Amino acid sequence: MSLRQALDRFLPWIEAELQEIVQTSCQGLEPYYGMMRYHLGWVDDHLQPVRASGGKRLRPVLCLLCCQAAGGDPWQALPVAAALELVHNFSLVHDDIQDSSRYRRGRRTVWDVWGIAHAINVGDGLFVLARLALDRLNARGIPPAQCQAATFALDQACLALCEGQFFDMAFEQLLNVDLNQYLAMIQRKTAHLFAASTLLGAMVATEDKAQLEGYHRFGEYLGMAFQIQDDILGIWGDERTTGKSAATDIRDRKKTLPIVYALNHPEKRDLAHQLMELYAHPGPLHETEIRAALEILDQVDARRYAEEMADQYYHQALHSLEQMPIAPEARSLLVELAASLVGRQA
Amino acid sequence: MSLRQALDRFLPWIEAELQEIVQTSCQGLEPYYGMMRYHLGWVDDHLQPVRASGGKRLRPVLCLLCCQAAGGDPWQALPVAAALELVHNFSLVHDDIQDSSRYRRGRRTVWDVWGIAHAINVGDGLFVLARLALDRLNARGIPPAQCQAATFALDQACLALCEGQFFDMAFEQLLNVDLNQYLAMIQRKTAHLFAASTLLGAMVATEDKAQLEGYHRFGEYLGMAFQIQDDILGIWGDERTTGKSAATDIRDRKKTLPIVYALNHPEKRDLAHQLMELYAHPGPLHETEIRAALEILDQVDARRYAEEMADQYYHQALHSLEQMPIAPEARSLLVELAASLVGRQA
Repeated sequence: MSLRQALDRFLPWIEAELQEIVQTSCQGLEPYYGMMRYHLGWVDDHLQPVRASGGKRLRPVLCLLCCQAAGGDPWQALPVAAALELVHNFSLVHDDIQDSSRYRRGRRTVWDVWGIAHAINVGDGLFVLARLALDRLNARGIPPAQCQAATFALDQACLALCEGQFFDMAFEQLLNVDLNQYLAMIQRKTAHLFAASTLLGAMVATEDKAQLEGYHRFGEYLGMAFQIQDDILGIWGDERTTGKSAATDIRDRKKTLPIVYALNHPEKRDLAHQLMELYAHPGPLHETEIRAALEILDQVDARRYAEEMADQYYHQALHSLEQMPIAPEARSLLVELAASLVGRQA
Repeated sequence: MSLRQALDRFLPWIEAELQEIVQTSCQGLEPYYGMMRYHLGWVDDHLQPVRASGGKRLRPVLCLLCCQAAGGDPWQALPVAAALELVHNFSLVHDDIQDSSRYRRGRRTVWDVWGIAHAINVGDGLFVLARLALDRLNARGIPPAQCQAATFALDQACLALCEGQFFDMAFEQLLNVDLNQYLAMIQRKTAHLFAASTLLGAMVATEDKAQLEGYHRFGEYLGMAFQIQDDILGIWGDERTTGKSAATDIRDRKKTLPIVYALNHPEKRDLAHQLMELYAHPGPLHETEIRAALEILDQVDARRYAEEMADQYYHQALHSLEQMPIAPEARSLLVELAASLVGRQA
């Protein structure tokens, strides 16, 4: 089976599971669930059915592939896969408010359509539904102790997500952020939920501690690589493929890895200071300032640095996989997915 | 034991349990946990220790008293009690943003001190910690299946909370709200978490279905009575005891029970229309408009109507208790607490 074939099999399952969870039998609540369904890409802003992008469902796919690789039945892992996607989307809905982002995946964000108050509540609702999704594990034959372990692992990932979000917002107020601070932030904000995705998928299949740790590590390294790759795309990405204009992250003065690297460059202190000054003023950067920042990043070779670091994490992820007893086909699917997430060739 | 003595015993336990849960070992995250601790009343806005009001801890107290009444050890129920309080506080932090409330319990709200973006994240963090609190049940000797049942019950209450919040916000945009809509709203927004408090406390003590249903009903009726009493205080309350100025809910055009009653009065349609017109314009009501609204409420005897309804729920709550096999002392504590919550004599 190719990754494409696996996706063609899994994506409709994931969508069906999500659709079952995000619905209500109470008519008065239709507009509330409708806002959640809008965010997930199933309805338009008049709550009429539509086929819009609700994201790539990366985390659920990763979860199901890991379940399969660990010898489990992906169908049993569907509630977990749905929970992971709902947690991810809860954080996006709140993130869009916090970042004042008016667009996501080419559509207006929930707060932009219905206001901040409702959007907060939409995020909260998705969060609760993620938790309720896990209660569907019992009906798929997972015993209570394992359900509880899965719940705990998801909760840990959610806490990390909130902590990472705190760092992200706090760093906006700092003149400088060093590499350790940056790594602590993305570890919590991105890598932990990837690690939960691989771990929870495997948990449905096995209780073998060494294997579970291996899947957890694979997800965590992959998450780090994915985030750094996302940082690179946020500066040098192609608008047509990323859906956001190039250098967006610079305009918004985000302290992503290439910027963090340049700000802390041990030798080119004058360039670091110039960049710090460009970043010191509140509000978005102007076109000329963006060009100046890009020029500085070029001069310190920040893109190559970030690409190398993404590569390191990517290879650590692959190395974790190699340690584990996985059937060749299942392994190659995971390798192919991992490669696609970080824009590499498998 | 009197209720006072029970509170003197339980409140320090609850506070200690909460303090253990809402803390971090990561120095960089101290400011994040500090904001949560501020909201809970333990530190000031410079995160220095202070003794401020963090609320009355009604839900945890109710939970522990029900655990005791059902023959359990309240110490075992502490994680559940803490979880309930954290869920309640998550909803308050988000509620304050949604309502643009700048003060709570005589102190500035989290969003007023640190901004909306951080306040959203503080609420999210309290929510996750509520979930992680339940993972402490294992260490207190509660088996996995019971932990899972408790988790599910709490999740259900959280979903109801979000749904109730949706209704509350949606109703602000409606010219009129009828009694059924109002009841559906407070049932979800207030009564369900009270019901979870009594149910979860009892769940730690017993698996007897009839008893659990009885505690659930007791909590739900009590929650309805409590909310209606709160509605009454929001209009006719004494500023010194409620901490908010009288008629606040009218100024903010809240559709609480006395208002809903007057808006839907079957005979005095002219008064209903006058009130609807007063409520039709956005923004807070002026002093003269508030006086006019109070006059209308007087003329339809709305206060007496609300008090009678609160009484009905209160007596239904007491009736639920009477059905259950509870030792006299434990029962009288619950009756005394219930009476104090609705401003009645036990």
